[in-house]
Order: sequence, then structure tokens, then C-alpha cells
Amino acid sequence: MKALVYHGPGSKAWEEFPDPVLLADTDAIVRVETTTICGTDLHILKGDVPTMADGRVIGHEAVGTVTEVGTGVKNVKVGDRVLVSCVTACGACRFCRDGSFGQCLGGGGWILGNEIDGTQAELVRVPFADNSTYPVPPGVSDEELLMLADILPTAYEVGVLNGRVRPGDVVVVVGAGPIGLSAITSAQLFSPSLVIAVDLTASRLEAAKQFGADVVINNGQQDAVAAVRELTGGLGADVAIEAVGVPATFELAVDLVRPGGHVANIGVHGTAATLHLERIWDRNLTITTGLVDTYSTPTLLKLLVGRQVDAAKFVTHHFGFDEFEKAYDTFSRAGDTGALKVVISRTVAE
Amino acid sequence: MKALVYHGPGSKAWEEFPDPVLLADTDAIVRVETTTICGTDLHILKGDVPTMADGRVIGHEAVGTVTEVGTGVKNVKVGDRVLVSCVTACGACRFCRDGSFGQCLGGGGWILGNEIDGTQAELVRVPFADNSTYPVPPGVSDEELLMLADILPTAYEVGVLNGRVRPGDVVVVVGAGPIGLSAITSAQLFSPSLVIAVDLTASRLEAAKQFGADVVINNGQQDAVAAVRELTGGLGADVAIEAVGVPATFELAVDLVRPGGHVANIGVHGTAATLHLERIWDRNLTITTGLVDTYSTPTLLKLLVGRQVDAAKFVTHHFGFDEFEKAYDTFSRAGDTGALKVVISRTVAE
Amino acid sequence: MKALVYHGPGSKAWEEFPDPVLLADTDAIVRVETTTICGTDLHILKGDVPTMADGRVIGHEAVGTVTEVGTGVKNVKVGDRVLVSCVTACGACRFCRDGSFGQCLGGGGWILGNEIDGTQAELVRVPFADNSTYPVPPGVSDEELLMLADILPTAYEVGVLNGRVRPGDVVVVVGAGPIGLSAITSAQLFSPSLVIAVDLTASRLEAAKQFGADVVINNGQQDAVAAVRELTGGLGADVAIEAVGVPATFELAVDLVRPGGHVANIGVHGTAATLHLERIWDRNLTITTGLVDTYSTPTLLKLLVGRQVDAAKFVTHHFGFDEFEKAYDTFSRAGDTGALKVVISRTVAE
Amino acid sequence: MKALVYHGPGSKAWEEFPDPVLLADTDAIVRVETTTICGTDLHILKGDVPTMADGRVIGHEAVGTVTEVGTGVKNVKVGDRVLVSCVTACGACRFCRDGSFGQCLGGGGWILGNEIDGTQAELVRVPFADNSTYPVPPGVSDEELLMLADILPTAYEVGVLNGRVRPGDVVVVVGAGPIGLSAITSAQLFSPSLVIAVDLTASRLEAAKQFGADVVINNGQQDAVAAVRELTGGLGADVAIEAVGVPATFELAVDLVRPGGHVANIGVHGTAATLHLERIWDRNLTITTGLVDTYSTPTLLKLLVGRQVDAAKFVTHHFGFDEFEKAYDTFSRAGDTGALKVVISRTVAE
Repeated sequence: MKALVYHGPGSKAWEEFPDPVLLADTDAIVRVETTTICGTDLHILKGDVPTMADGRVIGHEAVGTVTEVGTGVKNVKVGDRVLVSCVTACGACRFCRDGSFGQCLGGGGWILGNEIDGTQAELVRVPFADNSTYPVPPGVSDEELLMLADILPTAYEVGVLNGRVRPGDVVVVVGAGPIGLSAITSAQLFSPSLVIAVDLTASRLEAAKQFGADVVINNGQQDAVAAVRELTGGLGADVAIEAVGVPATFELAVDLVRPGGHVANIGVHGTAATLHLERIWDRNLTITTGLVDTYSTPTLLKLLVGRQVDAAKFVTHHFGFDEFEKAYDTFSRAGDTGALKVVISRTVAE
Repeated sequence: MKALVYHGPGSKAWEEFPDPVLLADTDAIVRVETTTICGTDLHILKGDVPTMADGRVIGHEAVGTVTEVGTGVKNVKVGDRVLVSCVTACGACRFCRDGSFGQCLGGGGWILGNEIDGTQAELVRVPFADNSTYPVPPGVSDEELLMLADILPTAYEVGVLNGRVRPGDVVVVVGAGPIGLSAITSAQLFSPSLVIAVDLTASRLEAAKQFGADVVINNGQQDAVAAVRELTGGLGADVAIEAVGVPATFELAVDLVRPGGHVANIGVHGTAATLHLERIWDRNLTITTGLVDTYSTPTLLKLLVGRQVDAAKFVTHHFGFDEFEKAYDTFSRAGDTGALKVVISRTVAE
Repeated sequence: MKALVYHGPGSKAWEEFPDPVLLADTDAIVRVETTTICGTDLHILKGDVPTMADGRVIGHEAVGTVTEVGTGVKNVKVGDRVLVSCVTACGACRFCRDGSFGQCLGGGGWILGNEIDGTQAELVRVPFADNSTYPVPPGVSDEELLMLADILPTAYEVGVLNGRVRPGDVVVVVGAGPIGLSAITSAQLFSPSLVIAVDLTASRLEAAKQFGADVVINNGQQDAVAAVRELTGGLGADVAIEAVGVPATFELAVDLVRPGGHVANIGVHGTAATLHLERIWDRNLTITTGLVDTYSTPTLLKLLVGRQVDAAKFVTHHFGFDEFEKAYDTFSRAGDTGALKVVISRTVAE
Repeated sequence: MKALVYHGPGSKAWEEFPDPVLLADTDAIVRVETTTICGTDLHILKGDVPTMADGRVIGHEAVGTVTEVGTGVKNVKVGDRVLVSCVTACGACRFCRDGSFGQCLGGGGWILGNEIDGTQAELVRVPFADNSTYPVPPGVSDEELLMLADILPTAYEVGVLNGRVRPGDVVVVVGAGPIGLSAITSAQLFSPSLVIAVDLTASRLEAAKQFGADVVINNGQQDAVAAVRELTGGLGADVAIEAVGVPATFELAVDLVRPGGHVANIGVHGTAATLHLERIWDRNLTITTGLVDTYSTPTLLKLLVGRQVDAAKFVTHHFGFDEFEKAYDTFSRAGDTGALKVVISRTVAE
């Protein structure tokens, strides 16, 4: 088969690669029909993810068709069309028993395109197939569904549910890239009274508006803390969701919330932040961090089918399997290209 | 009357002071029979609390007898013996309606001995008496009850409940001073499988054992993170409670918990800490801060009456009203004197 | 003034009545501008509410202007336009401290138009004004706001929040009268994947559709249990909300939910129901009952201002103060008149 | 091997039976060393459990040694000593993903000694061994551990956790048989201020006292509702746990709780009860039912190891494998014999 193989920082190639084979009786082999690129894949290519090895296939999101299953797989069979989730789960360790699949101690977690070969390939081996794939429901396109492989459950669980968004809340989302826009989208499931987006880039703030933000704040031009206080009677927001991953945005998120407020960090951080405990020790704040657990994937599937969530709007560009270089280029220059999610398919949509 | 009056950093005196009078119809005047000194009072004397003014009476904990009530007071009458809580509450603002009395926007919160004259006096005016005092239940001594004015609800709410301690949990309490010991005491209400105390001082760790810690770690001599991991199969504690208020102990608390764990900060911080988001962004942590709300005071009263909580053991020293200087000296040199809580009473217990 | 006075079962009159006066320093007098009739008022007129006395003014919902306040009222002043809530609250008893204002032990709860004179009058005395009135927010009409006096917080708290509706849920509302329609409206705040309405009357099911029900079931013509199972893969609904108040509808609600499901009773019941424990003991069900506590009123106000809730659609008929008889007639014959909520105003809207 | 085989209502025999064999690759075969009899087994013998077939082995609780495992079993290996739980779980269906293992749709749930051959045998096949067995921890005896196969997780999850027992609560347990005593034991993990036991039998009430009940009420001699009201200032208990399984005790439990209280049903019911909605519709009650899910088994194991739970006290009688008849006789005449749990072992403890 062909696959997108990582060859150390800055280097990758769409090249011949051995077909995957079943290694455990709970594995499935999936023929990938559609995949996408995640911000984390760019981190991998910078060499920021030490668990990723030279010579391994990139990618942790896919929709495809099952071509082979181990004898221990009960819920998926050859020919089934499935979503391959970024998180695989053993289903039996202490964390899986609690629904914390992302923290799986039994060999799962985020391993695709990281500790094992990933989904940017013609074929992929999916461990623990029963707990890591979801049948494609009727009436949903592959590319919509693909948004449930990582980006939407991540924003929903780690941003919206960890942040405990409630009807009537004022929610600030710091960062209006794909994850921030996913947070804006999924926060609306709880009917906040106001969704505020904060970013430094006008085009992203424009996207935020289109995704449902009621107010946008360019914090390069405006004091976001002052602006949010003014919108909230001086108290601050109920929930702030960090969707960037640098110290300044996390520190801003902490400053934005009211006494009793919640700060939900989604961003992938490479460096420490300053926590101003001298300002917040008596403010009854709750700060959360998290990797997606994908416990919400079945819920999001129902919402996708019921059209409560519009996932199609995330897809800005389409490519074929022979255009991975172009797809990465487009995605990595999102500021210029306006890319949110780029979809790479075996058969390109017209 | 006489009262302990603050006269700027480092200066205080037990001196004549005007008797308090009712200022609002929801006020009560209470004749103080027993009061105590809080760690926060030492901060005030260092000049660390800007809302405290020169010439104001110190103290926010007392047990006494109501001598006068405003026309709007319904639940307390002249002659009632009451606990005066550190937090007063208007009962009608958005935070009081949610039980967040410490964040009261209607003129309450922690104001006694801070924004208004306090309890280290022969008489004290208590605003919002209906929401700020509790009748002395039968069979409970004044000095036991006094531990419910601040220290026990603080440790229980901000440490144990915010930290969501559950049966079977491994709980680490960082800091074994009065607040840390209160956290150790109240954590046991939820039957953790292991309570671990961490401190730098041998005598405090000895006290921790007497208050119920199963394991004590002197982190001047031992790597607390390594020790806790060894006790928890390498994963870390379920809950870490910070009960000191300096960056190093907060940072230690964050390092001590397992994926999915809770860090509950109780300590009063004067400076920022470093939050290693690069290590914790994917660990599903929950970090909380808080001022006591005293929503748990009625519960703790029931537990005191039922002897599920032993509050008497916190009291190490007794003084008379004419011995405030000696009481402060004993309390501020706790390392030498072994003081936990010092009780200052109109009539000294034999 | 004039008021609608109850004169025993079946009898009432719009007649001269003494003006209310302040009885406690926490009282306010409100000049009623708009009021409405509740299903409970019809029960009162049938003689079903033993706490209601002959010679007392009916009504527990109003919007008006404060004309007088006691010295203990802090948050409302003469001239303020306010919503008068069906529940008044002392703010200091154990239930008020927990936000269970409807269970107030300090003289509040549902007392207006029940234990004291009510709101279907030119003037009304409102006890505990600080905890029982809400300022009229800008941009909201009186008659929209009036829906927050009882019907919307009741359906939201006792139906939707008690039923723990979550995004993606299948929610069945049994009964499509005003309360059932309020449940349909407020359930949508949590983005269920499917809202199903069950009723015996075609016109009410038509209304249910207009209020957002995705599916309607006439259980006079169709087996509702079978129909809901078919829509839910054989399992049953996640949440069933009972909004009628007779045994058959409660028993149906219990039969409609899946293992692990929630049954939230809103209906006012006059007789016992049968609980088939032999069928449900092992099904992990949660069944709740409740009187509105109005803890959600501030949230609903924000949602009304933000247009996440459309309250205007409940109002089907308008009357003047001199048309109370006609208003009651229209409301009590809802099957013929199509009445949902009838609004009776000092100045009738054109 | 030999096994206790059900032969229709009233009939059973300890007789030769074919050795179990692995049927799925996730199965294990366990050599039973200790087993016990459950109240449910008596129901089976009366013919009350239609899913139980003639010719099937009884029993759903055991401690033993793994003798064989399928190729899909990861966490248990031959020679491991394990607790066999009454609930087996596929680990991948919607209910297992939520921790509702008792409601498993993938072939698990309570099937041992019900839908498949059970544990009252020399050998037993355990499906989904990874999710259905727990390694024997050091320092715990087999017979203590056996109490975690069913009785303790049932009382803890379905009674105490569903009933949301909190520190300071007044908890009433209706029924002081083995399950009621388990509820009394596990309620104490949350430090209630008062545990009240209600039963008709003096010897059971005596046992309740020994298990930690603070107050006992013989409701054949005393009005339990009046007695509980007197102990609770007229309001009623915070939590009532039903541990009998007949209409009268369920109806009593509902009458015993305060406004806002919780009624947790554990009892296995064979007939419907009357729910007095006309009395409770406005009392904010929460009523729960449930089959054990065993999500708490790992927690209870930690509490057993840490000696927060004393399980040994449940065991009143010991028998050998050749004494099953005698064991059933002793257990079924508990009123005379004082039996709580009878343990039947391959090697009888001296």
C-alpha cells in the first residue's frame, strides 16, 4: 500500500509501505477512504512528539471500510463502513471502566499515528476495534463524520463539558482556529446567552462569527479582559475555553472568568504558564485540563444525524491521496489559505 | 468596651473602643465569650491585607451571646448563644442564591475584622445576623464550636469537597498546620483508603499522624512525588490538597496527582506559581481555588453534635481577654510552642 | 382597589378589596400591570387547595411597578418595574440556603394567592421582596416576562433539569398543555436529538409541533410505548417528563424510559399512582417530583433577553382587568378556545 | 465435576455435571474455592426467575483460581486467584461504556447462575473474564472477599450511592437482612450523623446495632414515620434505603424522607407498589431503582484492604462442598439460625 511516512523533523513522504496485518485478535484492518490532518500532525513534523518514531505512518482520523477483523472483534465485521477514532481503548483497565479512554492503561489511548502506524494511508490497523470504531450512520457524509474522529469530541469534552457550560452562560473561547471553532459550535448545544470569541486574526474572528459567536474581540487591538467585564456587569465570563496552547492565552483565560467560573484548557502546551494564585486563591475557580476520551462520540453521532451539529462547515479544502504534500501545505498555511479542516480522500469529491 | 485594635503593620493593642451599635435592621450585637486567632490575622498584622484599616478591630471567629438585634432579624433573638461565622451573607445576591456566600455581592463575605470591626473584642456587630450566626447546639462546648467559625468549613469545603474526596481515595494533604490538619480531619468523613501528609517539620507530621494521617512524608528529606507514586502503583494520588500558600507547595500538589486527579488549593497565596501545562495538558486534571462559603456549617454542626468530627483536639492553648499579646505570641511561634488553635475567652477554662 | 376574590368552590368576583399594606419590613407593595391565570387557579376554584381561604385574592404571577417597600428591602425600590414570582423566599432557612426556595420554612414558598392575597388585583403585597421579585430587563415585554413567574421555571426545573436532559437525548413529554409545551421549549436548551410529545388531543399535538416537538404521538390512537421503543432501537427514551397529573400519564412516563432513564414528574396529582416495581426494580431508573424553586429564574431571564427562549408564543389571548370572568372562561375551555396562556392587563395591548 | 444443579421449583442437587469449557476467547475457567448463597438463589428455587432453566448450575458469587483462559483474555492468567463478580460485562456496549455493566447489551449482566451455569460448582466458566474478575489482593481472606461478589457492591451502589448519602445525613435503612446490613455498613463510609434501622424482627435489629445503626425501630411495635420525624425535627430523613422488596416497605421508605430527600430502592420486587403522588408531587423527592453494576468493586477492594470496610462480620456459618443442602437450609431459615451469609468452601475453615 501507500502511506504518508514520517522521516524525522520536517520530513515526510507518500510512499510504498508494508500492508498492515492483524497483530491481536481484537484488531481490525480498515481500508481508509477519507482522512484529514490535525494540528498535532504539524507538531509531529516539527519533532515535538517524542513518542513518534522515524518510519511510522502519520494520522489519527479516518473513515473507511473494514477489510479484516480478529477473532475477538464482536461489533464490527468485514464490509462495515466505520469512523476510526483518534483514541483506541482496551475497555477493561481502570480508566476505560471510568470512561477515561484517552488515559487507557491497557495499550490504548492516542496511539494511532503516534505509537503505532496511523491513518494517512491506504490501510490502517485499528487496535481494540470494538471500542475504537463507530459504524457510519445513514444520511451522514464521510467528511462530516470525519470531524468526529478528533476535533469535535475534543472541543466538546475537554472544552464544553469540562467547562460545564450551562444554559444562559457567557462563554469565552480564546483562539478561533479549528478547535476553537469546534468549541464555539459545541458550546451552543447548551444554549449559552453569549458566546465571545477572542483571537488576534481578523479572518479567524470572521469565521468565529459564522460559527455562531455573538461577539468577537481582537485582543491585539482591544483589552479582552476589560471588554468581557463590560459585557458581564463587571464580573467576568462564566466559562473560558483555552483553544490555543501558549502561556499568554491560558493566562488570559484565567483572567476572563468571574468568581466561581470555569477555565477549560484544550490547548496542547509546550511550556509552563504563570498561575496568578495571589489573584485567584479566593475566587472559587475551577481549572481543567484534558485529552479527549471520546466518551461523547456516540452522543455527537446522534447530534450529527439529528442535524443539531453541522460538521460540514469545517471542511474548507479537498484533496486526493496523491496530493498529501499540497494538503499539508494548505493546512499549515491556514492564515493565508483560510483552511480549517482539509479532507484527503481516495476518491475526491467533485 | 475593650477590643484588640490594629494600628498598622506590626502594631496592635487591647484597648478601649466604642461599643458597636446596630447600623442596619438585619444586624445583631453579640457579646463575645470566646474567640481565636487565625493565620490570616497574622497576615493582617504584617500589613498584607490592604482592605484592613488602621484603627479597626481584628478577628473573624467567635462564640457569644446576642445582646441586641435589628427589627429585620428573624432567626436570632436577644439571649441566644451563637457561633459567629467568618463569612456574613446578604442572602439575596446572585452568589448567595447559589450558596456562594463567601462571594456575596450584597455587603457580606469575609468582612469581619477586615472591612468592618471584628470579633477580638468584648462586643461585635454582626451584619445579616440570620445568615451569619448559628445557634449553639446542646452538648457542644464553646471552644469546639469555635473551630466551625472558619478553620473546619474552610478545610472541608475548599479542600475536601472541592477536591471531591471519595471513599477509597488516596488523599495527600500538603502542609500540616491547622488548616492542613483540618483537611486531614474532614477528609476522613469520606473514608479515603489512605491519607498522606507532607510537611517539612517533624512535629507537624507527628500531629498529622495523631489527626489520622496514615502515612507522613517529610519532603525536606524525601522525594514526595516518588514516595506517593510508590504508594499508588506509579499513578499518583486521587486528590492533593494544598494547605500552605506558597508556590512550591502548590506546584508539588499538582505533581502529586494521577491522571484524572483533583488539586484543591486552600492556601492563601501572595505570589504567582508556575503551572506546568506542558506536563499536565493531557492529564485530565481539575484544579480548584476558593474562599470558604460556609454553606457546610450546618452539616458540620450536625457532625460535631454526632461526634463524627472531633474539634476539641485543635485547641492547644487557653488565654483570657487580658492575655491577647501572649496568645498572639504563642500562636505566631507555633513551631516552638506547638500551638494549633489558641482560644481566648472572657472566662478562662481551668 | 379591585381584586379577584375567591368565595369558595365555584365562586369568585372582581370586586372592591382593601388595599394591601406592608406587614413586614421585607415586604413590597407592587401595582400589578399584567397578570395571568394558572392551571392551579382552576384547581383552587374547584376547591382542591385546602390552604386557600374564602375571601382571599387569587393569583401568583404578575409584572408591575413597586409602589412601597419596607425598611429591610435592599434590592428593589419604589418605581422599579418587576416580575413577581410565584415563589417567595425568606433567604435564610435551611431550604433557602440550598436554593430550594419552594420548600422555604421561613414563611415563603408558594403562598401568593394561596396562604396570602395574590396577584389578580390592582395591588399586591409581596413578602421577602428581595428574594421574590426580579427587575424587568430592557427589551423584554411584560407579557413575555410573565411566563417566567411560574410556567417556564416550573417546566425547566422540575421537568428538564430534574430529568437531567442532555445533548443527544430522546425526550418524551407526556401532556402538551401549557406546562408540557414549556417543557418542550426548555428541553431544547440542551439540544436533545429528538423531542416526542404525547397527548390525546390533536390540537395540542399540533401546538407541540409548533413549539418544537420532532414527533407527536396521539396515545388514544397509538401505543405510545411501542412507538417510542421503535424510535429508540427498542430501549426507550432517555427522559420522560410527566406534565398532566393523573395516574395513567405518570405510569406511562415510567414505561417510556430506557434502563438508566429519568422520569421527571411536573404534574399536580390528586390521587395515587401504581409503581410497577416488579418491572423497574432492576432498570436503574430515577424518578423525581418537585415544586418549582425558582432558582432558575435569573438564568431564564438571561435566556429571554438573549432570545434563546421565545416566551411570547405562549400568549394566545389578551384581556383587561374588567374582563376576568371572560379570561377565566377562555382559559378553562382551552380545548375549544385554543388558549395556552391568557394575559390580563391594566392596559390591554392592541 | 460436581455442581449444584437446579431441577425446577423446589428441587436442586449436588451432582455430577460436565466440566465447563471455553466457549469464547474472552472466557476463563475458574476452579471455585469458596462460594455463597444469595437471597436471589432462594427466589430461583421458588421458581420466581423465569430466565433460569431446569438443569442449570446455581450461584453467582465465588472466589477461586483461574485454570484456563481464552486467547482474548489479557488481564487474568492461569493460576491467578480471583473474585468472580455476579455481573459480567462485555466492555464495549453503550451501557458498559457508561459503567452500567449490569445493563450490558453485549451478552453480559447478571447471567451467572441465571442465563448460564453458575458458581456453586467445582468449576465455572466466566465470560468476559477481563471485566468480570478481580485479582485477590494481599492480606484479604477469601470469605471476606466473597462479600464483594454481590452483597456489598449492591448495597453500596444501589443504596448508598444512588441515595446520595452525604456527611451529616440522617439515613434510614428499611430492612435489616444481609442487604440492609450491607447498606448500614457502606452508608457509614460517608459519615452520616445518624443511621436508623427499621425492621419487624428483634434479632435483625440487634444485628443492625452491631453493624453500626445508631437507632433501631421495630415498626411492628412503633410508628416508624412518627419516630423518624421526631428524630429529625419533624422533617424526615435525608435518605431512605429500601432493602426488603415488598410494597409496604417501599411505601414506608417514601413516607420517611424529608422534602428534597432520596429514596433508594434495593429490594427485588415481585409486585407493584402504590406511589402516593398526591402527597409527594411537590416534595422534590428523588426515587431510584437499580441492579448492581459493580463499577464500585475496585473501590470496595481498596476499602477492604485498608480496613475501612469490615466484611468478615457478615459470615455467620461455614460449610463444605458436600454440605450444600445444609447450607441452604441454614440460610433459608435465617430467622431461626441467625444466618447472614453462609460460606461454602472446598476446604472448610476450622
